[in-house]
Amino acid sequence: MRGAVLHAARDVRFEERADPAVVEPTDAVIRTLAACVCGSDLWPYRGINEIAGPQPIGHEYVGVVEEVGAEVAAIRPGQVVVGSFFASDNTCPNCRYGYQTNCVRRQPMGAQGCQSEYIRVPLADGTLVAAPQPPDERQLKSLLACSDVMGTGWYAAVAAGVVPGSTVVVVGDGAVGLCAVLAARELGAGSGGRGRIIAMSRHESRQELARAFGATDIVVERGEAGVERVKELTGGIGADAVLECVGTAESMRQALRSARPGGGIGFVGVPHGVEIDGAELFNSHVSLRGGPAPVRAFLPDLVDRVFAGTIDPGRVFDLELPLSEVAEGYRAMDERRAIKTLLRP
Amino acid sequence: MRGAVLHAARDVRFEERADPAVVEPTDAVIRTLAACVCGSDLWPYRGINEIAGPQPIGHEYVGVVEEVGAEVAAIRPGQVVVGSFFASDNTCPNCRYGYQTNCVRRQPMGAQGCQSEYIRVPLADGTLVAAPQPPDERQLKSLLACSDVMGTGWYAAVAAGVVPGSTVVVVGDGAVGLCAVLAARELGAGSGGRGRIIAMSRHESRQELARAFGATDIVVERGEAGVERVKELTGGIGADAVLECVGTAESMRQALRSARPGGGIGFVGVPHGVEIDGAELFNSHVSLRGGPAPVRAFLPDLVDRVFAGTIDPGRVFDLELPLSEVAEGYRAMDERRAIKTLLRP
Repeated sequence: MRGAVLHAARDVRFEERADPAVVEPTDAVIRTLAACVCGSDLWPYRGINEIAGPQPIGHEYVGVVEEVGAEVAAIRPGQVVVGSFFASDNTCPNCRYGYQTNCVRRQPMGAQGCQSEYIRVPLADGTLVAAPQPPDERQLKSLLACSDVMGTGWYAAVAAGVVPGSTVVVVGDGAVGLCAVLAARELGAGSGGRGRIIAMSRHESRQELARAFGATDIVVERGEAGVERVKELTGGIGADAVLECVGTAESMRQALRSARPGGGIGFVGVPHGVEIDGAELFNSHVSLRGGPAPVRAFLPDLVDRVFAGTIDPGRVFDLELPLSEVAEGYRAMDERRAIKTLLRP
Repeated sequence: MRGAVLHAARDVRFEERADPAVVEPTDAVIRTLAACVCGSDLWPYRGINEIAGPQPIGHEYVGVVEEVGAEVAAIRPGQVVVGSFFASDNTCPNCRYGYQTNCVRRQPMGAQGCQSEYIRVPLADGTLVAAPQPPDERQLKSLLACSDVMGTGWYAAVAAGVVPGSTVVVVGDGAVGLCAVLAARELGAGSGGRGRIIAMSRHESRQELARAFGATDIVVERGEAGVERVKELTGGIGADAVLECVGTAESMRQALRSARPGGGIGFVGVPHGVEIDGAELFNSHVSLRGGPAPVRAFLPDLVDRVFAGTIDPGRVFDLELPLSEVAEGYRAMDERRAIKTLLRP
């Protein structure tokens, strides 16, 4: 089969790879219906994360089950399935607490290289969720978004403590940030008189999608000016919940200063060079919870919402390419010409 | 009147100070029944915090109201009252959210120098809580503990997310740590089959009090060995909630590594040189919430528990001295001969 392989910084190639097979009895092999490029793929793509040698890449996927191992019971050939970027058994103590991305048997799906025609999925019963019916085009895109960005935005909102009526700030207008807006709306933020969903963005097309997803306000200012604007919109004290969807020292600072005393930050941008001063955090009274989103915990609910038509996170895909043009998919996102690239075999 | 004044590192003197008076119409003046020395007083006492010049010291107090300003309505002369280490109006948005130590009009009581015969209390109606009846000796000590250490331990437990059945680790066996054990017990941790309250301590007298306050297990190991022991006691994954009651880089590291993925840390030790690595926090899935405890939020409930006889946090006082011997009170705590010193005028 063929798939994407990262050879060096900014050198992604579509090339022949070994066909995936059932190796462990808990594996499944799926035929990819759609894959995509993640903001976090840009870290190695840009050479910020080390590249030891040619490595298959990609960790988001929707596919049709082709084959399952002898111990796979719940997942069956022919099903359309979606899973998260970590395979997990969904039965260990950490999974049972809802932190499947800390499963004691977790395996990163990035190692499988999911921007490819076929994918081996370890721990298939724990990892995959089957669609209740064959998805139409719109549903397929939204399922794919649930594989990472929608699940990650959802976790940001949950980790920040969003509840009905919350006032929420979303830092970051990438696909995760936009999905975080949608998650905040679904969790009841911004509803009623007091609540707001404030998206921080200076890109018109992203602002538009943020509004479509439920943002009540757009803040274009950054840094101290951005914090001031948020304070103006939140009775002078800051937001109940801040969803940090970038992962830089600057975005974390923005988040910390935008939350009210007693507010919460959910941080899902993979931190790069982020150090948090203990005394500053102490004096802020703000809570922090982050991490690789346990998307698997939310997938059944998210899949239901996609098929019920209440969420449409597939709208984050504003570029569609054949898988063979994966290199252009990366370039478009690297240059911020695209929010997120969908790839079809 | 007379009171304690810190002149330089390890130089506390009991000396003549100006009599406190009602300055603002929202003030009260109280006659001190009991005051005490706080672990956080030891930071300036040891010269770790800068001492600009002679400064009155102390921020914990129980007293009888002597006089109130014209705008004080709820607090009346003759009442026995307790308050927290920050005066707060209890009406601003931050107070209404339960973060009185971030009150927009907050004033540190340390500036009043509460280790003294009389104390000026700003924002008396917001700050003070009256006892329902004159306290006996035991109740008096427990009310005094509620002024800071018991309220701070309680906040640690709330901030860490302790709920009935939680498994809790308490880092720090000072008065706050011991009160945190008591708070965890009152919030239902350690009850039922699964829960535990694990106190980390290597001092026999403190271990004994920890057990009396509800600790089910004592861990004497520190560092990696301490983390290993906690893991053994918590099914291999770590605790649901960790109450960090010290404030050093080492104690925070201990706390972070003792919590399970998805667990929470409540940190109430004033951080000195604590830097948190964003990537490590991210990968841990652990939440952090700390800060100067909003003791005022918990005081009415804590006062009720003291008079109902369900909590007895006054047991942390293992040294009682006349206020005139305040210098010895500091020495005893500095040298860890005493957990906490009670001072009586």
